[in-house]
Order: sequence, then C-alpha cells, then structure tokens
Amino acid sequence: MNKLAVSPLTQDDFAPFGDVIEARGEPSFTINNGLADRFHALARVQMDDQGETVISLVHSRRQPLPHQVTVVERHPLASQAFIPCDDTPFVVVVGKAGESISPSGLQAFISNGAQGINYHAGTWHGLLLTPYAEMRFICVDRESATGNCEQRFFSDVQACFLDLD
Amino acid sequence: MNKLAVSPLTQDDFAPFGDVIEARGEPSFTINNGLADRFHALARVQMDDQGETVISLVHSRRQPLPHQVTVVERHPLASQAFIPCDDTPFVVVVGKAGESISPSGLQAFISNGAQGINYHAGTWHGLLLTPYAEMRFICVDRESATGNCEQRFFSDVQACFLDLD
Repeated sequence: MNKLAVSPLTQDDFAPFGDVIEARGEPSFTINNGLADRFHALARVQMDDQGETVISLVHSRRQPLPHQVTVVERHPLASQAFIPCDDTPFVVVVGKAGESISPSGLQAFISNGAQGINYHAGTWHGLLLTPYAEMRFICVDRESATGNCEQRFFSDVQACFLDLD
Repeated sequence: MNKLAVSPLTQDDFAPFGDVIEARGEPSFTINNGLADRFHALARVQMDDQGETVISLVHSRRQPLPHQVTVVERHPLASQAFIPCDDTPFVVVVGKAGESISPSGLQAFISNGAQGINYHAGTWHGLLLTPYAEMRFICVDRESATGNCEQRFFSDVQACFLDLD
C-alpha cells in the first residue's frame, strides 16, 4: 500500500486547497478602540445563494496513526473551516477540486498547533485527523439540510496510508 | 456615575442580543466517520447580499477594570461573532437593536471561559473587555470595505461604568 507523505502546513503549499488561518506577521489593524489587534480576513467564506453560514463546535477524539485513507468527500457549494482551540497539531488530507479524485492525487499536511484551515468549496478531503490528543475546533460551514456532500470510496487495493514517522 | 451590573452569560438572558456559542448538553450528531462530536449551528451568520463573510483572528490586550462605557457601536448589516481560544472569561456590554441607545438601556455579561458570543445584526455593543489576561479570539463577521459600523458616544455625565466586584 502506498504511503502518503505528511508535509508541514504552509499557506503557499495549501493554497490550491484552501486557506491557512494563522496570526502571522504584523496585525492588519487594531479594533476595539486600540485594545486589540486584528489579523483580518484570513479566510473568506464561500457560500451559495441557498446556503446559510453557521458556526458550530466540533470535539474530535484522539485517533492513533497509522491511518488508512479509504474515503474522501467534498462540499461543492461552500467552504468549510476548522480552527482549533487547542495548541495541538492536526493532520488534513486533501485533493484538488474536480470530478475525479484518486489516492495518487492526495496530499497530507500537519499543522503547527497555531493554525486552522478553510477548505475551499469543492476541495476533496479525508478525515480530519487528531493523532496527539482530543481536540476542540470551531467550524464555519454551510447549513447542510439541502445536501452538500459527495463522497468517493477507495478499495483496499487503491487506498493509501499515512503515518508521522 | 451609574454602575452597570455584570451578569453571568446565559443563552436565555443574551437571546435579545445574539447567540451564546458553547458546547452544552448532548452533541447534535457525529461527523468525521464517528470520530468527532458536532454541536451544530450554535450561531447563524447574518449577512446582507453585498457583504462577504470573513474569518479573522483577534488578539486582545488585558484591560484592567473598572471600565467607563463612553461609546457603543452597531453593525446593521451583519452579525459579528467572537469565540475565544483561551479558557478565560471576558465581558460584553450590549443594548437592544434600534435607532436610539442610552446607557440605561445597556446590560453587561461575563462569560464562563468556555463561551463565545455572536452579536446579531444591529445589536449595540461596547468594547469587548478582557480583564483577566491577553486573549485570542476567532472572529466571524463582514468584510467592512463598504461600511457597516455606527457609533454613539456618551458624555461623562451620561456614561456608566462597570466593575466585577
């Protein structure tokens, strides 16, 4: 089975898939009468006319690695952001938007503990992996009552796996 | 000068002003192939047709109390959420949406450390106060290039103050 390399998460490398949400460099401006620094518009929410943007909390259990990538999904109508509340790295598996996706088109990234991510609409992604600890995330995405999720399953022969060593 | 009482932040008491974002009770459902619990749609983003929802990070400096409330503002076109990454209480000052606002119409709330808030469009609010420590927030609001902020200033005679004792 092919092994998927896990790269450090950077804005440049993640750009084809979405945004990295992190307070890097100088603040954009101050708010709150100068009492707070704002790092502005680190991600832009993509939303269709029928969708509603909602804010949810997600509590993820610890998942030991290695992990076998047997399924990916995409949300064609809207972006989806996960921003951690805990200073702990997590791992994402992504593939470029498009009708077809295969394990050979996937990339994996590990965050540095201070980063969140925003999948652009249509970006293929695997499970959000939290190998080090239970983690809490703030999620910004689309109210899903009308359906906005497509999945592709890989057979055991096709599937790849990832590990951190 | 009148003193503004500071009440514990609860969904019921804050409902006229916005949403309390917290993981209370049972999760709404699981996601991520059962690996994560989701507390769904704790806040809904309100956005006009011309606006764009953006995700920003805000770093707030510690502000010792007492605090004098001399200005409030509102964003008529969109909601504005602040969700803390640190398990530290913060204080908000709010007034009901409407053209007029006076210090006698204000209420103050202190969070329990695990709560965020989402001001509904039009809710008057004072400065976001972080009296205990520097704090990091995730902010979800409207790209402001076209203007979406009105302010009202109170004279020293009108102004009220708040403290935690």
